[in-house]
Amino acid sequence: MTAVRHALETHAVRDQPIVIAVSGGADSVALLRILSELQDPLALRPIVAHFDHRLRDDSAEDGRWVNSLASGLGAECILGVAQTTAPSTGVEAWARRERYAFLQTCASRKNVRWIAVAHSADDQAETVLHHLIRGTGLRGLAGMPTVRTLSSTARLIRPGLGVSRAAFREYLLGLGQSFREDPSNTDGRYTRNAIRNEAIPFLRDRFGRDPSRSLVKLSVQAHEAASVLQRLARRALKRAVLEQTPDRVHIASQAFYGVPDAVVQEAGVLLWRRQKWPRREMSQGAWKRAARFLRGTTQAEQWPGGVRGVKRGGLVVLERS
Amino acid sequence: MTAVRHALETHAVRDQPIVIAVSGGADSVALLRILSELQDPLALRPIVAHFDHRLRDDSAEDGRWVNSLASGLGAECILGVAQTTAPSTGVEAWARRERYAFLQTCASRKNVRWIAVAHSADDQAETVLHHLIRGTGLRGLAGMPTVRTLSSTARLIRPGLGVSRAAFREYLLGLGQSFREDPSNTDGRYTRNAIRNEAIPFLRDRFGRDPSRSLVKLSVQAHEAASVLQRLARRALKRAVLEQTPDRVHIASQAFYGVPDAVVQEAGVLLWRRQKWPRREMSQGAWKRAARFLRGTTQAEQWPGGVRGVKRGGLVVLERS
Repeated sequence: MTAVRHALETHAVRDQPIVIAVSGGADSVALLRILSELQDPLALRPIVAHFDHRLRDDSAEDGRWVNSLASGLGAECILGVAQTTAPSTGVEAWARRERYAFLQTCASRKNVRWIAVAHSADDQAETVLHHLIRGTGLRGLAGMPTVRTLSSTARLIRPGLGVSRAAFREYLLGLGQSFREDPSNTDGRYTRNAIRNEAIPFLRDRFGRDPSRSLVKLSVQAHEAASVLQRLARRALKRAVLEQTPDRVHIASQAFYGVPDAVVQEAGVLLWRRQKWPRREMSQGAWKRAARFLRGTTQAEQWPGGVRGVKRGGLVVLERS
Repeated sequence: MTAVRHALETHAVRDQPIVIAVSGGADSVALLRILSELQDPLALRPIVAHFDHRLRDDSAEDGRWVNSLASGLGAECILGVAQTTAPSTGVEAWARRERYAFLQTCASRKNVRWIAVAHSADDQAETVLHHLIRGTGLRGLAGMPTVRTLSSTARLIRPGLGVSRAAFREYLLGLGQSFREDPSNTDGRYTRNAIRNEAIPFLRDRFGRDPSRSLVKLSVQAHEAASVLQRLARRALKRAVLEQTPDRVHIASQAFYGVPDAVVQEAGVLLWRRQKWPRREMSQGAWKRAARFLRGTTQAEQWPGGVRGVKRGGLVVLERS
C-alpha cells in the first residue's frame, strides 16, 4: 500500500522496531500485513500488541487469534488484559485510556519509539463529523493527526489515515487473509458507531454522495490552515512576551499591532497552554476577550481558574493567583 | 435587535436608503420591521423589494400582502415578476439568479448602494452543512459572507446572520406581526429544504444537540482563517509577480521560500482569479500542482483551459494560449 508506506517514509519511520496495535479487526489486520510486507524495504520490525478490554465474554478468543496470526508472520506478539472493569458510562473513553496505557507500556518495555494504530480515512471522516456535531473549531476539524507525541520516548503514527476501510478489506481479500468482526462495532449506544452506522449512511443516502471523502479533504485543509495560524501566533508571541514565570507574563501589546484577530486568539491559546492555565473552561467568548486584552484594548480582565489581566501603559500583565 | 444593528453599523450602513428583499416569510418580515425601527437611529430609508418567481398559482397574493405591509410601515415597495419560466431542473439556482437580478435593478433604478437580505443564523448553518455534504474547502465552510459586492454600485448585506430563525419569530410574536408561510419550504426535492427539514433534525435528535450553533461558530472561525491565508497569499504574490499580462505571468519562485503550502496554494487561486483563468475545472490535485510549480519544484505543467507553465531558472512562467 503506497499510502501507508508514504506516511511512514514522510515521518522517517524505518530501520527500527514498531509496535502495532492489532484488535483483530479488518483495518488493524490489514495494517499488520502491510507493515510485514514493508519489513524488508523499510527495515521495520513489527511487534504486535493486542489489548483485551474484557468487554465481551469471548474477548480472549480475539487475543489467541491475533497471537497465531502474528506468529504466522514471524512477528513477536504481546497480549494485554484490562486490570480494571469498564465503568457504566464513558466506556469508549475508558477503553481508549486503558488501551493506550498498555501500548505505551509495550513500547517502553521493548524500547520502541513508534506505535502504529490502524485508523483509516473513514475513521478520520467519522471523527471530523463527530467533532462537527459536537461543536468544534478549526483544530477539531483537522481530526486526528497522522503523528502525535505520547511521551518523551513514544510517538503515535496513523499511517492508514489516507486509506479507506473498503481498500483495507479489498487488500485482505486479495491476500485471502481473514479477520475478526467486532460485535461492539454495531452497538448504537456508542457515539462512534452511531456516526458510522447511522449519520454517514443517512447523509450519503439522502444527498446522493458519500460525505467521507469530502470530510477527509476538508480535515487536511483545516489542519494546514490551523498550522499556519499557529506558526504566525508563535512568531507574534515570541515578539510580544517580555518576561515569563509560571504565574505571570509581561506582554508588549504593540507586538500584536496589525496581526489578524484569528492569530492573536491563537496566540492566547498558545500562551495559556505554555502557562498550563486551565483551557477547558475557556469559552469562545473568553478566548475573544483574551485576544482583545493581549492587544491592549481592555483595561482589566478575568478568566476561569483565577487568571487575571491588568493593563499598565503599553504593557499588559497576565497572572494567576 | 442589537445583532442586526451591530452588523449594519460595522459596515457603516447608515444615513442612506436601503433595498430590503421581502418574500413575506417570517425572516424577511422580521428584518423589515427591525430596519423600520432603525430608520430613525441609523437614518436609514428602507425600500421594500418583493419578487414573484411565479412558482405557485397563488404567488401574486404574497406580493399584495408585502405591498400592504410596506405601506403600513410607510416604506416604498417595488414588486417584480419573473419574466422567464422556471426550468425543469435547477429551480433553486434559477430562482436565485432571477431574484438577485431584480434586486440589483431596484437598487440601480433607485440609486441605492445597499441591498439587505434576511438570511438567518439557521440559513448559515444549513449552507455550511450543505457545503460539507457536497464537499468544500475552508472558504466554503465560511458559508455566506455578511457583506458581498454585487456590482460596481451595489453591495449585499446579510445583517441577520447572527440571529436565529426562532429569535426572528419571537420578535414578530412580540409585535403581533403576522407573516406568510411559503409552502415550497417543505418541498423535499429542494436540497436546501432537505438539509433544513431532514438532515439538521436527524443530527439533533440522534446526537442530542442542535448542530446549527456549532456550525455557525465554525463558519466564523473558517472565515477568519481563510482571510488570514488570503492576506498572506496576496502579500507573497505581490513579491513574486515580476510581469503580468492577461495571458502571461512571470514569477520569481524564491518569493515563496519559507511560505507554508496552504498559503502558496491560496496564492495560486488568487493568481488564477486575477488572470480570469478557468477555476471551476481545477481539482484539489490541480491546485496542489500549481503550488508546487509556483515554488519552482517542477519543470513544466499543464492545467485545464490551456494554462501551461514552464520553468526558466529561478523564474516560472505561466501562460494561456
